[in-house]
Amino acid sequence: MKLLQQSFSVSFQYPVYFSENIFQNQNQILKEVLSADGVASQKKLFFVIDEGVSQNHPKLVDQIKNYCKHLEEVATLVSEPLIVPGGEEVKNNRTYLDKILSITNEKGIDRHSYILAIGGGAVLDMAGFACAVAHRGIRYIRIPTTVLAQNDSGVGVKNGINAFGKKNFLGSFAPPFAVINDFTFLSTLDDRDWRAGISEAVKVALIKDREFFTFLEEHATKLLERDNASMQYLIYQCAKLHLDHIASSGDPFEFGSSRPLDFGHWSAHKLEQLTNFELRHGEAVAIGMALDVTYACLKGWLKEEEWKRILALLLKLGFEIFVPELLDNENKDVHRILAGLAEFREHLGGALTIMLLREIGKGEEVHEMDQDLILRSIEVLQRSQNKTLVI
Amino acid sequence: MKLLQQSFSVSFQYPVYFSENIFQNQNQILKEVLSADGVASQKKLFFVIDEGVSQNHPKLVDQIKNYCKHLEEVATLVSEPLIVPGGEEVKNNRTYLDKILSITNEKGIDRHSYILAIGGGAVLDMAGFACAVAHRGIRYIRIPTTVLAQNDSGVGVKNGINAFGKKNFLGSFAPPFAVINDFTFLSTLDDRDWRAGISEAVKVALIKDREFFTFLEEHATKLLERDNASMQYLIYQCAKLHLDHIASSGDPFEFGSSRPLDFGHWSAHKLEQLTNFELRHGEAVAIGMALDVTYACLKGWLKEEEWKRILALLLKLGFEIFVPELLDNENKDVHRILAGLAEFREHLGGALTIMLLREIGKGEEVHEMDQDLILRSIEVLQRSQNKTLVI
Repeated sequence: MKLLQQSFSVSFQYPVYFSENIFQNQNQILKEVLSADGVASQKKLFFVIDEGVSQNHPKLVDQIKNYCKHLEEVATLVSEPLIVPGGEEVKNNRTYLDKILSITNEKGIDRHSYILAIGGGAVLDMAGFACAVAHRGIRYIRIPTTVLAQNDSGVGVKNGINAFGKKNFLGSFAPPFAVINDFTFLSTLDDRDWRAGISEAVKVALIKDREFFTFLEEHATKLLERDNASMQYLIYQCAKLHLDHIASSGDPFEFGSSRPLDFGHWSAHKLEQLTNFELRHGEAVAIGMALDVTYACLKGWLKEEEWKRILALLLKLGFEIFVPELLDNENKDVHRILAGLAEFREHLGGALTIMLLREIGKGEEVHEMDQDLILRSIEVLQRSQNKTLVI
Repeated sequence: MKLLQQSFSVSFQYPVYFSENIFQNQNQILKEVLSADGVASQKKLFFVIDEGVSQNHPKLVDQIKNYCKHLEEVATLVSEPLIVPGGEEVKNNRTYLDKILSITNEKGIDRHSYILAIGGGAVLDMAGFACAVAHRGIRYIRIPTTVLAQNDSGVGVKNGINAFGKKNFLGSFAPPFAVINDFTFLSTLDDRDWRAGISEAVKVALIKDREFFTFLEEHATKLLERDNASMQYLIYQCAKLHLDHIASSGDPFEFGSSRPLDFGHWSAHKLEQLTNFELRHGEAVAIGMALDVTYACLKGWLKEEEWKRILALLLKLGFEIFVPELLDNENKDVHRILAGLAEFREHLGGALTIMLLREIGKGEEVHEMDQDLILRSIEVLQRSQNKTLVI
């Protein structure tokens, strides 16, 4: 018996820009990105746009076409932009993925061409999956338009669509070619989407950066009043922590079972499903974090004082910390929310691994959770939703 | 405008075993592979088997079940093996991919479970694509059963299916968890498949290893007589050169346009299509190499003496070096084969990059090919097919 041991590394690089009005002619970012490979030949470009974004920015398609006229030396649009619905619909219905693939085929979009997607996280996930699998990888430029996509999902390395009723059942790890965060798009978000994206910032502050948590406490009112400077700093800092984590975790493609950035997510994923996606992802994560910090406090890990600070911040930002679905029963004794633990384990693969808080800014992983303690935590949240924080 | 530059590396490792009778109880390889992660928990296993292999080895499924009984401490079969057709059919028809995905869903196969595929390159490509995209990556063990899959495609990092009538239009780069080459499967190959796999060995010898080329010349008769020892060395050496190339090329996921291992492939891909896949991939590669070495000789790069050695080896191994499809015309002046250049460029993305030979064992890339010289090379091949080698 003979054996050859294969071993190699692949390095990935991509820039993440923070800017405004990226399709105004004086903005050079896109031109810079498209010229970055140093190859003089004309590149093909194809845009996919979130329907909600194109409705809120009716001149967007014209702006893109106009901007692309000034790109003539480096790139050309090969097709009209494709407008697709936002939200889970675009990930549930395979039509949209297939449409991108068929345009890729028809227009001869190749591995050195660019597909650019403008939209919320769901549109970016779906278009990214198309780019990852067509010709084994088309260059993909993400232009996230929501707080959540700009500070979290849009800067990472994952993509995917839903299948068999499961979120992200199909997907891959495929770093983008570039990410361009354009703050201009945030102005048309409704208050609910503006707020929902803040919860991933609270999350990453809680597990990684105590100082950033203090910033969020101090700027909660300004954030609610839609102060742009505060939000821009929040997005930049949250994206930075996210990028640092991917680069330094030692496991960017998640071969292991540890996924610290999924703090608060085991119940959040389940709550999204139990509420038929009435809860936004960020709203569900806020409840999921409230649940897991309460658990950590009852478990004796997190000091009561810190627990209060965290719940007070979530409440001040306007998040719910309790929804009736937390108490949904399959039968008298089985709470549906608890199935979220098993589903989360299956999604991770291997052993259950849950991030819990020791203190603000410092997490630690556990491999099991006590079901009674989870149910007691839910009771605490139910009592605390009126803002009387007593554990 | 602010900018964050993301940068990280991902390291990949996998073992490639060369063995016999891997499902006999005394063979410990599979057990070793399944225990390699050091995690004590029971793993889930699911097998996908090439129909041709299961017909030629009617006891295979029973052997697998019996072997898995001895794996009880580390793993269990979660489903009956799925039998799928071999060849391009399994990549053309999405039914088989969808079937693997749906079993993955039903049986709770997760990122730390194993899908094992036994078969020729097409089955391995299709099953590998399913593994790459389900849950963003199930652990995938390839058990190649043909010469071509054992020495070439099965040890690499690509997977894929066909779409829009194009080979490998959908796919990804996803290194396997392990590759287990079981020489026992070669005994039931027909002579044509046995021979076809040899052409990738000629290819890699021509561009990388002059000594290996001499080995092939010296063992051509033995290889034709189906001498196992000669074939096992050929497979080992070819796989080794292939693995070394991936690890040391600096571009294992082919972000650039250079793909030296695709020597002879631009016309080979086109000939497979023009012959409606009557030509096996290896047979088409033999003709493609004959064409490109003739071109290199006419161009003044390759000495006539070396050109003769190469064509003589291909002919001695029983390969055709000419098929009438090389002369197929779209109209009077346009040879269909020349479209293969443009399609190859589109498949690579970016600039056309073709590997040509300077001498046996030494290639050099060019970015254009002279169409008249290609047509003259085809004429030379037509004249030379009767084994009178005159350029």
